[in-house]
Amino acid sequence: MIPADSDGGLLAPGWTGSPAASATSDTAFLRALLDAEAALTRAQASLGLAPDGAATAVTEAADVGRFDVRSLASRARGGGNPVIPLVADLTEAVGKEYGPYVHRGATSQDIMDTAMMLVAVRALGPALEDLARTERALARLAAEHRDTAMPGRTLTQHAVPTTFGLKAAGWRALVLDARDRLTAVRDGLPAQLAGAAGTLAAFTAFGASDPTELTAAYARELGLAEPLLPWHTLRTPVADLAGALAFTAGALGKIAADVLVLARTEIAEVSEGSGGGSSAMPHKANPVRSTLIAAAARRAPQLAATLYGSLAAEDERPAGAWHAEWEPLRDLLRLAGAAARDATELAEGLQVHADAMRRHLNLTHGLIVSERLAAELAPVLGRARAKELLTEAAKRTYSEGRSLAELLAEESELKDVDLGELTDPARYTGSAGALIDRALERR
Amino acid sequence: MIPADSDGGLLAPGWTGSPAASATSDTAFLRALLDAEAALTRAQASLGLAPDGAATAVTEAADVGRFDVRSLASRARGGGNPVIPLVADLTEAVGKEYGPYVHRGATSQDIMDTAMMLVAVRALGPALEDLARTERALARLAAEHRDTAMPGRTLTQHAVPTTFGLKAAGWRALVLDARDRLTAVRDGLPAQLAGAAGTLAAFTAFGASDPTELTAAYARELGLAEPLLPWHTLRTPVADLAGALAFTAGALGKIAADVLVLARTEIAEVSEGSGGGSSAMPHKANPVRSTLIAAAARRAPQLAATLYGSLAAEDERPAGAWHAEWEPLRDLLRLAGAAARDATELAEGLQVHADAMRRHLNLTHGLIVSERLAAELAPVLGRARAKELLTEAAKRTYSEGRSLAELLAEESELKDVDLGELTDPARYTGSAGALIDRALERR
Amino acid sequence: MIPADSDGGLLAPGWTGSPAASATSDTAFLRALLDAEAALTRAQASLGLAPDGAATAVTEAADVGRFDVRSLASRARGGGNPVIPLVADLTEAVGKEYGPYVHRGATSQDIMDTAMMLVAVRALGPALEDLARTERALARLAAEHRDTAMPGRTLTQHAVPTTFGLKAAGWRALVLDARDRLTAVRDGLPAQLAGAAGTLAAFTAFGASDPTELTAAYARELGLAEPLLPWHTLRTPVADLAGALAFTAGALGKIAADVLVLARTEIAEVSEGSGGGSSAMPHKANPVRSTLIAAAARRAPQLAATLYGSLAAEDERPAGAWHAEWEPLRDLLRLAGAAARDATELAEGLQVHADAMRRHLNLTHGLIVSERLAAELAPVLGRARAKELLTEAAKRTYSEGRSLAELLAEESELKDVDLGELTDPARYTGSAGALIDRALERR
Amino acid sequence: MIPADSDGGLLAPGWTGSPAASATSDTAFLRALLDAEAALTRAQASLGLAPDGAATAVTEAADVGRFDVRSLASRARGGGNPVIPLVADLTEAVGKEYGPYVHRGATSQDIMDTAMMLVAVRALGPALEDLARTERALARLAAEHRDTAMPGRTLTQHAVPTTFGLKAAGWRALVLDARDRLTAVRDGLPAQLAGAAGTLAAFTAFGASDPTELTAAYARELGLAEPLLPWHTLRTPVADLAGALAFTAGALGKIAADVLVLARTEIAEVSEGSGGGSSAMPHKANPVRSTLIAAAARRAPQLAATLYGSLAAEDERPAGAWHAEWEPLRDLLRLAGAAARDATELAEGLQVHADAMRRHLNLTHGLIVSERLAAELAPVLGRARAKELLTEAAKRTYSEGRSLAELLAEESELKDVDLGELTDPARYTGSAGALIDRALERR
Repeated sequence: MIPADSDGGLLAPGWTGSPAASATSDTAFLRALLDAEAALTRAQASLGLAPDGAATAVTEAADVGRFDVRSLASRARGGGNPVIPLVADLTEAVGKEYGPYVHRGATSQDIMDTAMMLVAVRALGPALEDLARTERALARLAAEHRDTAMPGRTLTQHAVPTTFGLKAAGWRALVLDARDRLTAVRDGLPAQLAGAAGTLAAFTAFGASDPTELTAAYARELGLAEPLLPWHTLRTPVADLAGALAFTAGALGKIAADVLVLARTEIAEVSEGSGGGSSAMPHKANPVRSTLIAAAARRAPQLAATLYGSLAAEDERPAGAWHAEWEPLRDLLRLAGAAARDATELAEGLQVHADAMRRHLNLTHGLIVSERLAAELAPVLGRARAKELLTEAAKRTYSEGRSLAELLAEESELKDVDLGELTDPARYTGSAGALIDRALERR
Repeated sequence: MIPADSDGGLLAPGWTGSPAASATSDTAFLRALLDAEAALTRAQASLGLAPDGAATAVTEAADVGRFDVRSLASRARGGGNPVIPLVADLTEAVGKEYGPYVHRGATSQDIMDTAMMLVAVRALGPALEDLARTERALARLAAEHRDTAMPGRTLTQHAVPTTFGLKAAGWRALVLDARDRLTAVRDGLPAQLAGAAGTLAAFTAFGASDPTELTAAYARELGLAEPLLPWHTLRTPVADLAGALAFTAGALGKIAADVLVLARTEIAEVSEGSGGGSSAMPHKANPVRSTLIAAAARRAPQLAATLYGSLAAEDERPAGAWHAEWEPLRDLLRLAGAAARDATELAEGLQVHADAMRRHLNLTHGLIVSERLAAELAPVLGRARAKELLTEAAKRTYSEGRSLAELLAEESELKDVDLGELTDPARYTGSAGALIDRALERR
Repeated sequence: MIPADSDGGLLAPGWTGSPAASATSDTAFLRALLDAEAALTRAQASLGLAPDGAATAVTEAADVGRFDVRSLASRARGGGNPVIPLVADLTEAVGKEYGPYVHRGATSQDIMDTAMMLVAVRALGPALEDLARTERALARLAAEHRDTAMPGRTLTQHAVPTTFGLKAAGWRALVLDARDRLTAVRDGLPAQLAGAAGTLAAFTAFGASDPTELTAAYARELGLAEPLLPWHTLRTPVADLAGALAFTAGALGKIAADVLVLARTEIAEVSEGSGGGSSAMPHKANPVRSTLIAAAARRAPQLAATLYGSLAAEDERPAGAWHAEWEPLRDLLRLAGAAARDATELAEGLQVHADAMRRHLNLTHGLIVSERLAAELAPVLGRARAKELLTEAAKRTYSEGRSLAELLAEESELKDVDLGELTDPARYTGSAGALIDRALERR
Repeated sequence: MIPADSDGGLLAPGWTGSPAASATSDTAFLRALLDAEAALTRAQASLGLAPDGAATAVTEAADVGRFDVRSLASRARGGGNPVIPLVADLTEAVGKEYGPYVHRGATSQDIMDTAMMLVAVRALGPALEDLARTERALARLAAEHRDTAMPGRTLTQHAVPTTFGLKAAGWRALVLDARDRLTAVRDGLPAQLAGAAGTLAAFTAFGASDPTELTAAYARELGLAEPLLPWHTLRTPVADLAGALAFTAGALGKIAADVLVLARTEIAEVSEGSGGGSSAMPHKANPVRSTLIAAAARRAPQLAATLYGSLAAEDERPAGAWHAEWEPLRDLLRLAGAAARDATELAEGLQVHADAMRRHLNLTHGLIVSERLAAELAPVLGRARAKELLTEAAKRTYSEGRSLAELLAEESELKDVDLGELTDPARYTGSAGALIDRALERR
């Protein structure tokens, strides 16, 4: 049993049990907070600002198993952030001799922001791996279905043919776009070291001759980037994360949106590898992965909006804008990470029903290629006559239930035209193949 | 220790430990899900659709302590909601004889939606109590400071005087508005009973002659309203909750925004009763309650936006829009509930420094009453002359560092005017007192 | 030609040319601003605070045709709102004698807020008429198709049958919910009168003995509600509008979402009366009305979020939160109003293809009634055997391409069962009819 | 007079009259639509797919002055976008001979998306110039006030000293971040060419052997990037714009937020060069530029959210998600562009009152340097004694109204300590100067 007022993901089938969930849990945040504290002391020791024994002592004490995350959460209320009680507990754990070196010269926000960046880096690792797997699966689908014709649909209606390969190649392009944006952001995420108001003054008071060296050492200890300026209220890293994560959720949301259309009972051109079943209704194979991705894509933009809103942070630490970042950023990491996991399963398991696609190309009695006929018959018949002929034939397809090919074959004017070619939807896929080939060259 | 991937509020000093947190925890949701299942069986028994023994058995088995919320969360992933594994576990707990009566005729969404409404009702209770306490504290402040003059500020600048009582009465009006909206929404929250696609057909198949009687009995068992129609995809209750909760967070956010201004070091017209301290900086008394309320007010609108967005729910159960509701609605209940708790502490503990307010009325050398002088001197001096005189005097106040009253007293034209009255900011508070009196009559 | 930097709706096929567009145009806002100014002078005259001649003169001068809206817009930049230049122009238009009575004692926000409320009332009128027409059209559809069976769909898959009448009745319920919310909000929209900082002090300086009488008279002149308190920074009316308008857009968005599914080429159970055509693709009949409603429903929640966010308005007039309300509120009035117009056309013109619905009920080979069979065969065969039989038959439907009814008819155990009744999807619509009847009683 | 239902910026003092407004007006969009059409025909001519005469004829006819933007707007309603009527009008304007080459092979979205990108590029030009001017002004402020000490404020309270130069350097860093993000996005904005469903098939039907060459030629004609794939439903460019524009508004919003604090009547450490005045209240100098920037920063995140939400675009053209992009993207271009204009005026005109800053450093009786004293007295007195001494002295500063320096000077233990240095707030600015120097090296 988990404690009565904590969350274990019951309302979150999307992210529960995912790598993103464990990388962003309270315990993971506590670990990152402790990592930040230990790195700070080690960095100070490396510059002679603290004894080596302090570095060792703090690093050893900063063991997540020794701290009570719920007690910390509870005591965070007074001062409004969990670093205050954590420093008290860590100082005690370190003991009398080296306790004074804990958190020396730092402010709560230094530790909190740095931990947030650490958590982001750690959560993005598995997310990027899942995007890579998704990308590979989509590349396979694109190649395999390079010439699998299907109806192109605009505003819900059949327009002209396309191929499933082109659709998969487009999905993959979005996944690569997401990967590129996440990677670029992740690689620049900075450590935070600023002191009480961004001047690093306390570090000087404690003896540092050039505190920016301390920032550099601290960032190195953590594997984070060294910031040009303390960014207490210059929230570019958070906004960049918000944008890249919302993009990722939305990009995967496009795939889900398409699968949800194509998996409809009436369409059934694709199905999820392992649909969620219903015992009372054995015919149901719900596209659950797509559904959960779609849900994530609906939520992410508004979470990002809250983070973009926090850019307008007054003073050297804002009263509210900063505190409003913590949960939404975690939620975004979870939603994007979990959507990537679901996308992997979706892409790797997707079943493509090329026969259904082929069948649907005929649903409009051949009118799906009317654009081509209008273009190619004009030189033969003259523009006006071609249009007249097609308009009339189009009407008859529906009233007589016959195909356009059949009706046109009866027109003597067209006896020299290769109507088989012209009216075959599968042969009107334009540059789909070439576009796929080009798109798949992108790595 | 809580499990490694669950949350206990470490990132949420706003809501951690609050009544809203425990009323909306995973365990609380599990309890509500079980309550819904048990109520359904009891309702069926009350109409002769199930044996009384089944009602008893299910009610007894539906004990939150017997279920493993983390296992349920984990198994929710397959089908995309936690009701599916819960029904399995509950059926097993009920046993062979009455197991078949568990969840009979219902669909997952019936239970999930109903539980959501139960949780909302349960979370709103303490929130409304906190709003009531806040309202009373603000009424006291408004009455006590009915005539405490202070600068009215617009676009950050002193405009004309107002009173702290009027400000407090305005805050109270917003709290009452929030109370009225939350109460109205809460009292209409409906149970959900629809069956697989909203027709209640399975209940008929299991023998109900009029399934709407079952809905009524089910709602009665739960103390929820009886819906006119199943609302699987008619999400008015969720949208109404979203609106009322976002309103509540915003209304309390107005109070916090004002306190954050007035508590600034340079202004210090109010201070929080128990500011968050800083050991390194003993002069700091951070307005932590206001900060946390402000953070909630920044987040709530975007969470509500997600819920309003879920109104556009296709079919008889949408693939994503429904799933996107669960966490945002819980977050809103938490944020609004926790903001109400913080507002209570804020309002009950607020220290008002009337002397600072009085002192600040003179910061503009008396120009804070220039509006009055322009109005009242025009009949005496003529409009043009009055304006000329005031414009000149205004300039001199700043260049000579003397007060408007002093400068005007030197003007012979004004020797018969009671400048003491006219230039006293504390006597230019208009209808503030009358407005407070009227506002306090609202209950 | 419209001027080079103004907008005439080119990017807004949703609202262009709609009643909502003309009710919320710059000219309409100018008219409302002038109406507010004139009403204020008349109200003062009615209380003896201004000569009757002033009331007449201001009312006559407040003629929208005499003002240059673009010049006002341009000059609004300096002070940050258009009332400042408007008062200058209006004062000049009124002339020397009565000019001093223009805007006497008021502040820009008094006029701006009041105009916003007037515009809202005026824009909501036609919107409510359109909702009423939509509601009537949907009531007709619900009654006409009370027994038109169709597949109920959940998570994109066929679940159990429902009826189109029940769907239409649900749509209508949402329209009525929107109507009720909009009407309630509209009827309470208050005039704004506060003076520079909410104390009404300037009105006293100009001679009013009880300025709240002036507020009452002013509200009466305008047909708006009298506020209990000036609401300069108590933004309940704006938040209430935001909620009701976002609800309306979302409620109509549900209808659009359903139509967009049902109008798909493969489904074609409904079609818009006048689909948008494509010359190159004569078979395309795009569901344009639904598309534009869906676009509005996507945008409205975030606009409402901005307005909810403005509740947290510091001081007696906030520096930003107020200014951030104007365009989003107008956008919401436009989007909701235009969506109501489109919904009217959609509902009145909707073509329902009952034959397609009937045909689709068989798409799952009869499994769409498996829920019923499981329930009703259990008493006949025993629960275990019933389940076994159905599971096996379900598999065979797909592998053999035969219907469930046909397969079950071969089972000797079922020879006494009326399989015709049990397997007919059109006879498994549960309480749909009764629910429709009940729902249509709501007015 | 502008037409009765068009907008000329009356509600938008933020963007009215700005370069962003004229670059994004309906007329500007019409121009961009026509530019796209003309470029397409020219590109086709360059590849021999159309006669040169057609290229000339279409280019000449595509003159914005010959089209009626309001008529186009009105006729856009039927098909849901303005390109449909525009193609009709342009074809007629081109005349019988070359009319058939207008829009040949293209779909409405090709033209609409391309025009959107053109408008974005054109609107971003002046915005980037304004950011460059803002950046230079801030660099000057940072250098000039490199050593101007002022209170650092956290959670509204004085924390430790900082310098105004560091604050300005931080603002500049955000402006550079915005510049970098906008520039990167702008330089990659692609032309759109896809044909009806993304396969470029119609261009083949009209004779192109490799339509991707056409895309390249078309992009070159327009000065836009060549896309790797048609991006009809791969909306990366729109999402990237959304993110960069929301970032820009938020980054400038940080500057505005700070100015709004520092310009408060009680603080008055800065003032806007040309504050908005009030005739009735001559002492008021409203920070109007900051107010309008702050309003933009409140709105932008939610507009970006709508655009991120449109990533989840089903099919080859979504029914709603695409249409929901147009106005929000325009609004974002306007808000960010206008905020850049306001930021230029703000930064270039900002008055810095170093004396007020200096004075405020003493507001806490010297406790603003208590952090330093705690650090530096510990080695002298021992940690425990230092803490005890400071705690006691801190209390006495408030009770006795004396400064910390004065009280400590009475302590004999400290007679050898240079209290003048240690207690001077202006000498406790840490690495502020070095950080500024480093930050200003960034170009």
